[in-house]
Formats: sequence, structure tokens, C-alpha cells
Amino acid sequence: MPASPLHEAIAHNKARYEEYAHGTFLRLTDKYHGAPRGSVAIDGRVIYGYPSIGRILRLETGLQHQFRAPFWVEEKVDGYNVRLARVGDEILAFSRGGFICPFTTDRAPDLAELHILREHPELVLCAEVAGPGQPYISGHPPYIQEDVKLFVFDLMRLDQPGYLPQPEKRELLQRYALPAVQHYGRYTTDQVQEMRELLLKLTAEGREGVVMKEDSSRDHRAKLVTSYSCIDDIRGTVDHLRDLPAEYFTGRVLRLALFLEEQGETKIGDLRLQLGSAFLDGLSKAIEQWKQEQRVYHTHRCRFRNPENARRLLKHMKRSTGHLHVAQRRLEKEGDYYVLEFDKLHAGMTGLLGHALGGGLVFD
Amino acid sequence: MPASPLHEAIAHNKARYEEYAHGTFLRLTDKYHGAPRGSVAIDGRVIYGYPSIGRILRLETGLQHQFRAPFWVEEKVDGYNVRLARVGDEILAFSRGGFICPFTTDRAPDLAELHILREHPELVLCAEVAGPGQPYISGHPPYIQEDVKLFVFDLMRLDQPGYLPQPEKRELLQRYALPAVQHYGRYTTDQVQEMRELLLKLTAEGREGVVMKEDSSRDHRAKLVTSYSCIDDIRGTVDHLRDLPAEYFTGRVLRLALFLEEQGETKIGDLRLQLGSAFLDGLSKAIEQWKQEQRVYHTHRCRFRNPENARRLLKHMKRSTGHLHVAQRRLEKEGDYYVLEFDKLHAGMTGLLGHALGGGLVFD
Repeated sequence: MPASPLHEAIAHNKARYEEYAHGTFLRLTDKYHGAPRGSVAIDGRVIYGYPSIGRILRLETGLQHQFRAPFWVEEKVDGYNVRLARVGDEILAFSRGGFICPFTTDRAPDLAELHILREHPELVLCAEVAGPGQPYISGHPPYIQEDVKLFVFDLMRLDQPGYLPQPEKRELLQRYALPAVQHYGRYTTDQVQEMRELLLKLTAEGREGVVMKEDSSRDHRAKLVTSYSCIDDIRGTVDHLRDLPAEYFTGRVLRLALFLEEQGETKIGDLRLQLGSAFLDGLSKAIEQWKQEQRVYHTHRCRFRNPENARRLLKHMKRSTGHLHVAQRRLEKEGDYYVLEFDKLHAGMTGLLGHALGGGLVFD
Repeated sequence: MPASPLHEAIAHNKARYEEYAHGTFLRLTDKYHGAPRGSVAIDGRVIYGYPSIGRILRLETGLQHQFRAPFWVEEKVDGYNVRLARVGDEILAFSRGGFICPFTTDRAPDLAELHILREHPELVLCAEVAGPGQPYISGHPPYIQEDVKLFVFDLMRLDQPGYLPQPEKRELLQRYALPAVQHYGRYTTDQVQEMRELLLKLTAEGREGVVMKEDSSRDHRAKLVTSYSCIDDIRGTVDHLRDLPAEYFTGRVLRLALFLEEQGETKIGDLRLQLGSAFLDGLSKAIEQWKQEQRVYHTHRCRFRNPENARRLLKHMKRSTGHLHVAQRRLEKEGDYYVLEFDKLHAGMTGLLGHALGGGLVFD
């Protein structure tokens, strides 16, 4: 698709102009004519969005039902989704929603050697950024102890939806020594038991789950998460339970129950205690924080190469999270980086705990 | 308020006519000019609705904040709310929403000797009906092993909002030997420790909680539930998690966390394990039921004196729950009663489990 059809979406209220350093670009706020939400038209080119992948909740029937051919299995990493692309002379990182991410754009040179985008300027890297030093979510994989890491999982081409075939992608990732998600091999739909064992191994390693990609021209995909992921998500976000849709929590409890049902009791350890602890210990932390400081918040600490990008990130966060809910603590040079610390206020939880701990009446 | 002002609510789309054996009556579908939702105008009289009582989530601040005078403490029973009143020659039971409940109306003579309504036809009994033999909710107090029991907690007068004062109410309940909720005495706002101990005792006894009623002309009220209630509610309803608002579950987890925070770790036993088990064991039961019968449902078993009321109940249930979601299993005479068995289909859970266990893709 050349850039112009995306411009039609404006008339249908499904696209918006955004500003960036060199002018404006267009961002799809909703899917439009086959282009996913988050697709962007910039500098005369289109970078297609990364559509969400459906999840299966049961291996035995799910593999049979979803796949007509063998499929590749890759790690699903617990971070945020970005697309890295060359725009003019720069490499820009786009968020799932099609915003330019000032943090990822700033740190791109640290995350990977990106010669690939200089030698193949028509390519787009689809990747997860994960780690405790990221600005968006509070959780991170336990095997990343500091800052952030990049995990490429797909390559796209400018102006084209869809992804490069798996062998071509892997060859390029290897040739350019790009950091990629773990690759667990090619499975057939009757390898249910092998997949169960893989999921158990990933649970034990504290990994989020897998993405399965059919080895066929239709490249059909599905994801599946571990019990670790369900519980870790709850533990990591229950302190702002009132700032998320309640379905966020009930959905994860349901996934966990189906995981337990598929894997059987004996192999997993005490999921009941883990689940109850995730809820109650996480909330207990939020209550303690409110009692100490009369608010519930999370402090993010991110490193930047250029302090201007830290300011851009804060501006972006204030726009998406609410102006009063993001507050800078400090922005200071430390060694080669500028360290930004900011608090994200959990307004719903702060309000509820203030009311409840203060002895107010709740009607529900 | 005479009956006529309630009729004004029709013009504001806040009241509906309902049919009953002797004609029609009016039911407020929303609050209107100080009359709560569920108020009814019938046979020239008004029976005021029973408004919902706000809950406190913390004793220490809640008692101070809510009450300006000592307050009576009564058991909050886990059942459904009815108002029993004399209409013409009959005693009718009205649900919270202002419908005539065919089950409670049928069984009223078994639930209590209602001489009081013959000698004082201007009185209205506000009560909870609880037990495994009731048609509405699946949970019940562990101390009621079969059928249903009535627990009166307030008296009202026809055409008047508000309740009789506590001493007058208790005198009448005693004089007419009416079954009433447990009365735990009169407390002052500084008896926080005593109230904490009472709540712990009620948790151990499997009771839902307390309703506190200020001993003053304003008769201000607040309720507070036990950790037992939070966990028992989740265990009893998680099999139809997708048929209830997700906030039903997250709200109870929050209450539990605040209960734990107030009462401290040591006195309560392992709430973490209890909470996790309530979620996972309840869901596991639903999954098993789906695997056996390809649907998730609950079978209710209720006794009636008059089979016509059983048919009325089913009609009422089909109207409120959805025609296809209620199915009669049998209606047969057993001893002095007609036993109605019917299934309530949990359509959301049946659909979700069918999709998920069948290997379908879920987008969320």
C-alpha cells in the first residue's frame, strides 16, 4: 500500500497526524482497510502495524484447530512491542499504537547494532523491549536484572503488511548478529506432549510463553502463556487493580485454571498459594505505600543518551496517562547516560484506598 | 407518601406496571423522589424499597467516620432480601427490585408465623431468606443445611420510608416470636478491638458479616463483611465468572486484602491459600462440568406448597435470566411439598469454555 490510502482513514476518523522532529506523520488509531491500528505513514512510506495475536487456552485442541502445517515456536517475552525502521537518516522506534517511542528511539544504538537497517533500509524490525529500566510496564522477565534488552521476533518490509518467512528472517538475524527471541524449533500439531513439557520448562524459567507461527504461506499465528506469566502479571499489577479493567485479572485467573487443567496437578507446584499470594501480597504492598505516603505509585528509572528524549518521553506519558499522573523525580547525568526517574500515580487505587482507609462508605 | 406520587415516576420512565393474581401494581425501576428502586404501589398503598447499605472497609476509621452515636450490630445473612406485607387478604413477598417473589410468597407460612401482619396490617417485614433450597443464588450459610430459613432484620410501615426504632422492632419480633438475625449488641465507636474480635468470631462461624445501625433518629447504617464471605462468594460464583461483572471478583479480593490488613496475619489462617483455592477449585469444577456435559450450569431445588407458584417462579426466572437459560428438570409432589428442580445455564462460561477447550483463538 502506498502512503496515500492511509490518508483516506482521516476522513473516517481512524487516523491522526502526529508531530515529530522533521514534520508530521500519520497514525492509524483503528484498523482501516486491512491495515492494523498503529500503522503509520511517514516520509512517503507506510510502516504496517503489528496486529494482536490470538491466544489458545488449550494445547491439545488448540494445535489441531489452529494449524494446518508444522509451526515454529518462539519465546514470547514480557515487555513492550516496538517496530524499528529507518526514516530518512534516522532510526525511529514506533510503539504498538503508532507513536514514536522517545525512549526506544534514544536507546536503539545500545539495544543492537542496526547495520541491517542501513544496508536494507526497506526492512522493519519487530521486537520486544524488556527489562526493569523501561518506562511503560512495571513487570519484567526475571532473567533481565537491569536496564533493557531488545528481542527481535519478526522482520517486515516498508509498504507491505506481513512478515518475512522464518528461514529468511533467521538468516538475516544471524548475519547481522541481532538479538532475537529464543527459538524453540519446529513442531507438528501432534507434538502436544512435547509442547506441554516446553511450557512447563518455560514456567520454571520464569518466561511468559510462546508464539507459534505456522510454516506456510498463510503464516497463521497463535500464542500461549505459562502459569508463571498469569501469576506474575497479577503480582505485578494488582497494586493498581482499580486503574486496569477488572477483566485483566479475571482473564488471567481463567488462563491459569485452564493451564492447570491441561498440565495436571502434580507437575506445577502450589498454584493456589501462588495465586492467592500474588493478589494479597501485591495489595498489601499498595496499602502500605498508601499508609506511608497517601498515594500509590510506581517509580520508573530509565537511562537516556540524550536528555531531550527523556523530556519527550515524559510529555508522551503525560498525554497518554493523564497530565497529573506522571511526575518527574530527577533527570541527571550519571556516567555516559542521563538518568530519568519519574513516578506514575495509580489514581484509581490512590482514591479507593484513601476513601476506604479513611473510613468512607463504599456502594457496589 | 400516598400511592399516587409513585405513579408520576411512569412519566419519567422510572416505574413499570406488573401483573399479579388480583390485577396490576407499580414497581419503581429506579429511585424516584426519595423512594428507592424496588418501591411498589399496590392496592392503594406504598411499600417502600429497601435501599442498599454502604460498606466500610476498615473498622478503625470507619466507625469514627460513620457513626455519631452508639450503634446496634446485627448479623448480615448471606441470602436474598425480601419484604413481606399484607395486601388485601394475602401476604405477599417482594424482591429487592419490587417483583412479587413466587417462591417466598408460597413458602411464607413455613418461614414464620405471620400473626403480626394480621394484627398489624400496616407493618412490613424486611428479611433475608437463606439456605440451599432457594432459587436465586448458589451460595448459602454453612449453618443452614437444607431448605430455607427467614431472618427478619427490620420493620417498616406501609406508606412510610424508614424503619421502626430498634427497641420497638425487637419488642415486636420477640412478642410474635419471629425468626430474626442474630443481635450482637450495642457498640460505641471506640470499641474497635471488640468489633475486630466479633468479625473474627463470625469468620470462624462462616457468617457473612455485620450490619451496624446507629442508635439515633437518623438511623445511619453501614455494613462490613468477613474474610469468610469474600472467599465463599468467590468459591460459590467463580464457575460463572464470565456471567458476572469482573468487578464482582476484584472487589472481593480488595475487601479481603483490607480485612487482612486490619486484622493482621496471625489470627486468620492462610487466606492466600484459601483465596487461590476458591478461584482455582471453583473453575476446575466448571471445566469438569463442561467436559462431562458441554455446558456449565447450576441446579436449584426448591420446595413449594402450591405448584402454580413453581410455574410462576420459572416464568419470572426466564424473564429476568433469559428464556433459554432456565430449564425445568422436574416438578413433582414429594410428601407435603411440590419439588421443583431447574437448571440455570451459565451461558457466558459455557460459551467461553466451549471455545477455549475446543482450541479456539481468544483475543483480549
